[in-house]
Amino acid sequence: MLRKEHFNAAHRLHNPEWNAEDNARIFGKCNNPNFHGHNYDLIVRLSGEVDPKTGYVFDMKILSDLIKENVLDRFDHKNLNLDVEEFKELNPSAENIAIVIYDILREKISHDYDLKITLFETERNYVEYPI
Amino acid sequence: MLRKEHFNAAHRLHNPEWNAEDNARIFGKCNNPNFHGHNYDLIVRLSGEVDPKTGYVFDMKILSDLIKENVLDRFDHKNLNLDVEEFKELNPSAENIAIVIYDILREKISHDYDLKITLFETERNYVEYPI
Amino acid sequence: MLRKEHFNAAHRLHNPEWNAEDNARIFGKCNNPNFHGHNYDLIVRLSGEVDPKTGYVFDMKILSDLIKENVLDRFDHKNLNLDVEEFKELNPSAENIAIVIYDILREKISHDYDLKITLFETERNYVEYPI
Amino acid sequence: MLRKEHFNAAHRLHNPEWNAEDNARIFGKCNNPNFHGHNYDLIVRLSGEVDPKTGYVFDMKILSDLIKENVLDRFDHKNLNLDVEEFKELNPSAENIAIVIYDILREKISHDYDLKITLFETERNYVEYPI
Amino acid sequence: MLRKEHFNAAHRLHNPEWNAEDNARIFGKCNNPNFHGHNYDLIVRLSGEVDPKTGYVFDMKILSDLIKENVLDRFDHKNLNLDVEEFKELNPSAENIAIVIYDILREKISHDYDLKITLFETERNYVEYPI
Amino acid sequence: MLRKEHFNAAHRLHNPEWNAEDNARIFGKCNNPNFHGHNYDLIVRLSGEVDPKTGYVFDMKILSDLIKENVLDRFDHKNLNLDVEEFKELNPSAENIAIVIYDILREKISHDYDLKITLFETERNYVEYPI
Repeated sequence: MLRKEHFNAAHRLHNPEWNAEDNARIFGKCNNPNFHGHNYDLIVRLSGEVDPKTGYVFDMKILSDLIKENVLDRFDHKNLNLDVEEFKELNPSAENIAIVIYDILREKISHDYDLKITLFETERNYVEYPI
Repeated sequence: MLRKEHFNAAHRLHNPEWNAEDNARIFGKCNNPNFHGHNYDLIVRLSGEVDPKTGYVFDMKILSDLIKENVLDRFDHKNLNLDVEEFKELNPSAENIAIVIYDILREKISHDYDLKITLFETERNYVEYPI
Repeated sequence: MLRKEHFNAAHRLHNPEWNAEDNARIFGKCNNPNFHGHNYDLIVRLSGEVDPKTGYVFDMKILSDLIKENVLDRFDHKNLNLDVEEFKELNPSAENIAIVIYDILREKISHDYDLKITLFETERNYVEYPI
Repeated sequence: MLRKEHFNAAHRLHNPEWNAEDNARIFGKCNNPNFHGHNYDLIVRLSGEVDPKTGYVFDMKILSDLIKENVLDRFDHKNLNLDVEEFKELNPSAENIAIVIYDILREKISHDYDLKITLFETERNYVEYPI
Repeated sequence: MLRKEHFNAAHRLHNPEWNAEDNARIFGKCNNPNFHGHNYDLIVRLSGEVDPKTGYVFDMKILSDLIKENVLDRFDHKNLNLDVEEFKELNPSAENIAIVIYDILREKISHDYDLKITLFETERNYVEYPI
Repeated sequence: MLRKEHFNAAHRLHNPEWNAEDNARIFGKCNNPNFHGHNYDLIVRLSGEVDPKTGYVFDMKILSDLIKENVLDRFDHKNLNLDVEEFKELNPSAENIAIVIYDILREKISHDYDLKITLFETERNYVEYPI
């Protein structure tokens, strides 16, 4: 089953090992030192057996609460580079945000379920993890 | 190829082996005895070889008619619990609705094609079967 | 400013002054005595002056809370005909639901603001009030 | 005719005449000093007579270029508070962003056309100007 | 109330009073002599009083049938320039298509109702008539 | 990572080895000799390792430019049957268009990446390749 959630955040793409010219060349407008931002759409997919007592693979309300407490409360209306521990030294590309969210949720959810993250940075740019 | 269809239905989540308190605790608002309802979006995915004469994997019109006759005419503008045979003793969770639709269509479509069902209960809650 | 909210409900269209044949002829599948249901999308539009201190016409959070307390908590996961006082003797057509929501919210919101309701019964069928 | 465009930006809501507590109370998460961000969807609506030679009210390509040069190139992948002149002393609420965009485009487009701006801050929060 | 419908058609923008260079300059890629095409989304809006017997402004099913018989059956899967009488000598711009649809439906619908057409040529380009 | 692009084109489904009756029977309205058209939505999915220097699987801007130069510039605002070399003798069904786009892009993109194409002919009809 899949649950779609949403958060709004600022970010900047930057590799501190490169000089300003290389960062600007590689990351383009996304390297703006004053940050820019997105409405991120997040889809969390859990795969597993249907529980015959409930008819659920997993309770949508419980999954939604898990995502809220562990992801949205930490990422929503935040500056990913400055406010979120995981991106202090990790570039907050869509790919890396998806991996960080996967790692956060993977710890909270039984391995009876496969987990997959889809993250939309815009309606036209998005990533999946794991592939 | 994939075909998206749509139906509107009432349902209630309930396990008759549990008492009222347990049903209310597990199913929350979805346990309302007077029912509630949804606009279900249904995506049917058929995978197979492209027929060189038509350029089709499967004729969209034929698939759409199959879904209409076997699913929409039986589920649309219905109360799933009261009006649809398959849910007389099966909880109409999104997962179970997807499995029932899969079973209905699997009988009507040649095994030369793989079949997959995606069912949206809301824009934010949806399921896939088989996983 | 406009705020989009969402609720899921069951309903049945029926005029108790008509016989069964007339109800079936006029309301078609929507007359199913066991009810059917929808994911209703609700857009509330408030028009007024921008407050120079906040840059807001109206605080989105306050509007969202107003809608939640006065509309969603009463309509979501409900049977409109059986569970909602206003439809005990009023047919819950999209038009009437929009008018009821307008009347509920009009009492709660200062007349410094114009109010308009858009209600989607499906993605393809929707109504506005007032026109 | 209407043209939909898109930009991504960071912003912060803040009134410098208020203290930190009041700003946090009024603007909530939107007051984060490190900024957050959005994918803004912008709809520009021009109303006027149809030119019988072209069948156009206004050439979509020319309107799209006008929006790109005067709005998107200045707002996209920017920090509205720090990078955009008009918001140096104006709170970048959705309402104020819509008014600024209106004022920018109103100067570039003949008064033979009525102009209206719709700005989506999220899919669920949006504003229109003028009302 | 509003009803959304859909048709797919080919068209070409061309003014026979101009030479090839002027047509190419004004209409750009839309002047391709071999035609191109669109999925047009059509929204028909009828405004009027709510009938107290039905709770309807107008019966959605009747409106949908009216649109189907008078517009979709004539425009869908057609070449607007070659197959549709109204565009034999009228450029099938989005504006002109909206006006033609308005004129067709205006004759079929009682003047107790106001009528408005919105036509999406793409998700980002659309027109309204009358303004 | 996935990138969504868009093009508008005319096409006709036709098998020159069949007579007119068979073509009309099999392809229905899609066999209109004057063509019809669509707004095609194209999703290109590249799967591979995340580059630790950029946090990217693949640079979205480079992928978008690749799609523009090799697909959109050749397909957008064109008649697929008459203007696009690959469909001179191949029926431009959604399936075949997806395969042609796959073959075009597969040559341009390193085999370190898996490639998958999703092509929407309408919002409700779409195909994937490879399956």
